Amino acid sequence: MVDSRFFTNHGPFTVAALAAVTGTSVPNSTDGERLIADVAPLDRATASDISFFDNVKYVEQFSNSSAGACFVRAKYAAQAPAGMVLLLTEDPYRSYALVAQQFYPTTKPATGISPNASIAATATLGDGAAVATGAVIGERVTIGARSSIGANAVIADGVTIGDDCIIGPLSSISHSLIGNRVIIHRGVHIGQDGFGFAMGRDGHVKVPQLGRVVIGDDVEIGSGTTIDRGTGPDTQIGDGTKIDNLVQIGHNVQLGKRVVLVAFVGISGSTRIGDGAVIGGQAGVAGHLKIGAGVRIAAQSGVMTDIPAGASYGGAPAIPVLEWHRQTVAIARLTKPKRGSDE
Amino acid sequence: MVDSRFFTNHGPFTVAALAAVTGTSVPNSTDGERLIADVAPLDRATASDISFFDNVKYVEQFSNSSAGACFVRAKYAAQAPAGMVLLLTEDPYRSYALVAQQFYPTTKPATGISPNASIAATATLGDGAAVATGAVIGERVTIGARSSIGANAVIADGVTIGDDCIIGPLSSISHSLIGNRVIIHRGVHIGQDGFGFAMGRDGHVKVPQLGRVVIGDDVEIGSGTTIDRGTGPDTQIGDGTKIDNLVQIGHNVQLGKRVVLVAFVGISGSTRIGDGAVIGGQAGVAGHLKIGAGVRIAAQSGVMTDIPAGASYGGAPAIPVLEWHRQTVAIARLTKPKRGSDE
Amino acid sequence: MVDSRFFTNHGPFTVAALAAVTGTSVPNSTDGERLIADVAPLDRATASDISFFDNVKYVEQFSNSSAGACFVRAKYAAQAPAGMVLLLTEDPYRSYALVAQQFYPTTKPATGISPNASIAATATLGDGAAVATGAVIGERVTIGARSSIGANAVIADGVTIGDDCIIGPLSSISHSLIGNRVIIHRGVHIGQDGFGFAMGRDGHVKVPQLGRVVIGDDVEIGSGTTIDRGTGPDTQIGDGTKIDNLVQIGHNVQLGKRVVLVAFVGISGSTRIGDGAVIGGQAGVAGHLKIGAGVRIAAQSGVMTDIPAGASYGGAPAIPVLEWHRQTVAIARLTKPKRGSDE
Repeated sequence: MVDSRFFTNHGPFTVAALAAVTGTSVPNSTDGERLIADVAPLDRATASDISFFDNVKYVEQFSNSSAGACFVRAKYAAQAPAGMVLLLTEDPYRSYALVAQQFYPTTKPATGISPNASIAATATLGDGAAVATGAVIGERVTIGARSSIGANAVIADGVTIGDDCIIGPLSSISHSLIGNRVIIHRGVHIGQDGFGFAMGRDGHVKVPQLGRVVIGDDVEIGSGTTIDRGTGPDTQIGDGTKIDNLVQIGHNVQLGKRVVLVAFVGISGSTRIGDGAVIGGQAGVAGHLKIGAGVRIAAQSGVMTDIPAGASYGGAPAIPVLEWHRQTVAIARLTKPKRGSDE
Repeated sequence: MVDSRFFTNHGPFTVAALAAVTGTSVPNSTDGERLIADVAPLDRATASDISFFDNVKYVEQFSNSSAGACFVRAKYAAQAPAGMVLLLTEDPYRSYALVAQQFYPTTKPATGISPNASIAATATLGDGAAVATGAVIGERVTIGARSSIGANAVIADGVTIGDDCIIGPLSSISHSLIGNRVIIHRGVHIGQDGFGFAMGRDGHVKVPQLGRVVIGDDVEIGSGTTIDRGTGPDTQIGDGTKIDNLVQIGHNVQLGKRVVLVAFVGISGSTRIGDGAVIGGQAGVAGHLKIGAGVRIAAQSGVMTDIPAGASYGGAPAIPVLEWHRQTVAIARLTKPKRGSDE
Repeated sequence: MVDSRFFTNHGPFTVAALAAVTGTSVPNSTDGERLIADVAPLDRATASDISFFDNVKYVEQFSNSSAGACFVRAKYAAQAPAGMVLLLTEDPYRSYALVAQQFYPTTKPATGISPNASIAATATLGDGAAVATGAVIGERVTIGARSSIGANAVIADGVTIGDDCIIGPLSSISHSLIGNRVIIHRGVHIGQDGFGFAMGRDGHVKVPQLGRVVIGDDVEIGSGTTIDRGTGPDTQIGDGTKIDNLVQIGHNVQLGKRVVLVAFVGISGSTRIGDGAVIGGQAGVAGHLKIGAGVRIAAQSGVMTDIPAGASYGGAPAIPVLEWHRQTVAIARLTKPKRGSDE
């Protein structure tokens, strides 16, 4: 179904192989040997496709689907059409994602070392590392095994990049230590000196920024995002954190593990964000705050205070989300005629 | 009047030639033969310049202008100074734009094929296509006639670009089909995989994004903007749509024709925006919404619901703009002393 | 203390030399001859480090610090530990910044002219100017003495750059005149034509943008920022102005001297911002406004009106900051039970 100009299907795979990737069980060995050619949504899947049923809203699509195999929660198994191989899991979407990765693994922007790349003699490249045309690799840079640097990207002196990383075209990285399996999209700028000035009436004096950016494993960073290096302490991005496009991370910010930041989020200097926190698009967090683990912040919020672990906040200035909704309702009521009003 | 280091005047043109471009009539053949050397605003124009009068606020400037020719609505003709050639039109600014384009056509960032570009052997370039220094053109890319690719831009495998397009320096495009007469400014990133994860406590699993970005004709996309490809369906940008700098378009978004998005607008995944809609700067639109044709959304709005065609919305969460203004007034009144108050 | 892979310490310096840089006095000549090896915060400094005490909150750290020398206000001198050389100043942080610059001067992204740069024959480079790999320098470009152009940056025809400037990798500049000691970070795009269309139902007609971007001395512009050129008048950035990452400046905007714009600020077309104004992150300013000198605008504000010099504004639409805080309190009160309420 995909456009073959852009995507290469690495299948087919047997149901057994796909079940193994996801840790699910195959009902029987006949089913396990069945060949699956592609992934597809329930309504478009054919007998050679694997699909998933995750949202009860689509139960009718599930019951009428022609998919050859399907990830589904046990409680819905009875509603499956005849002949569909059921792979039972409590997280069908996650299982789908894992098998879709088998069919369509993430494409590296480069293979091999381009003769048109500019690589310093003191740089070290791991086995199978790739550097595309026009990329510039500085002195003493270390790039791990199987990592790939995109066209016209610029990796400055001393940067360390782990194994199996993908650095997109036209990105720049300096003053940074990067873990394994990190994906950095295009036009990302990491490691520039942050916005640090001793401000004054007669001019703002630049304060040297002497820290680094330290990025863990399995991090993904969207196009156009900027991450400033620390002032002396480091800016830190924890394992498994996912950052969308056009996000700004200030100096000394510490993002925990598996944090999610949506587009246009701005995190001001020295703020710490706990593990698993999720911050909606266009929200801003002021500097020197502590946002607890698992916190959820609504889109466009303006966070001016610490937030305890597990809380949900919204609004500007941000407050607990239920209170914020109550305020929205109360404001709407202000302009409605009401009995007993003194106006 | 312009700085000749940056702009080349392609004039002079006769009044008749300029009138023809705009579909206006010349009063008589003597006026038609008059030579016009440049465009200029009313207050700076000389007898060899053409100008426009669009806003009644400037009627005095109009009456005192030395412009040799001027686009003007018929109802203001009587207020013109003696000797000015009047070109009558109901849209003077549009006519001005068209003649200004004659004097100063959009500059292509490249002419000819640079020997320092990197062009795959399987790429196809139309007649008069140009590729600047450092640009990278991937396998099986198709670039139409007279299209121009800027310095250090990166066009990935399989991308199709139509005729008379301009791709700015330092932009990247992948997984995309682009129409004719499209202008993509600098540092634009189109076609990266969107922010798609099966989120979970133990880590977020990347979901392969198997769609494309399909861009119509006469689209313009500002510097620093990012447009993610679809998940399986495509991300679509309709004919004549204009996108400002630093905008983010999520996966599967469908923008209609002649949509206008101002800087920092974020459109979340799978939302559809109708023809002719205009969205102000820093506004955000949540995912999976349907915004009707001709809708106007105020700057900084947070759109959380569908909006019917032709409506004007503002605020966060966004509501009909008149209601939003009433709320702003009611909130202001809260802090003013009032008679009969119970506080 | 810094990571020597990324930073080179240019010290040691004598206390006398550091005092001279900051205009402070050394208590006596013995102290002046003391050698200082590095900068450090109060709590980590050793006898060979210089530090600063700026915030009374840290007075205990000051009294217990092992720093060999310290910038401090005269009124706190009595609380200094024995043996510390005191350099008295009313602005300790500014003095610290100046000495930190001695130890760690801003690193230029290039030294020398790379054979892999592409430099037009008609370009002029000053003494000691540097151009990195992959950079593209257009026709008739002028680059001043000791200025440095980063890797894969693109400087278009006719651009003038002053002395001692740093242009980051992957930035593009066109239609611009740039002063001295200007720092432009990475992925910055300056001089593209602004968002100018004669809008209409049948299509939006592009209006040629015939002005320039004129940037003063000592300006700093953050990564990912975009600055559009003027429509005929110029877009202007005054001396000493500091712009953070991912900011958007529309056509014809005039920023005064020493203005500070934080990340994601958007300034719409033709607005003028007075000297020393400070605008918080994610704030937006509508077009054609006049914001006075010294104005302070809170983060996320939406400015829809002129603001007089010296005022502090916040909120959306932005109002005087005290009134805005009163409204926030009044809104919070709406959802609290109150005596005498009619609800």
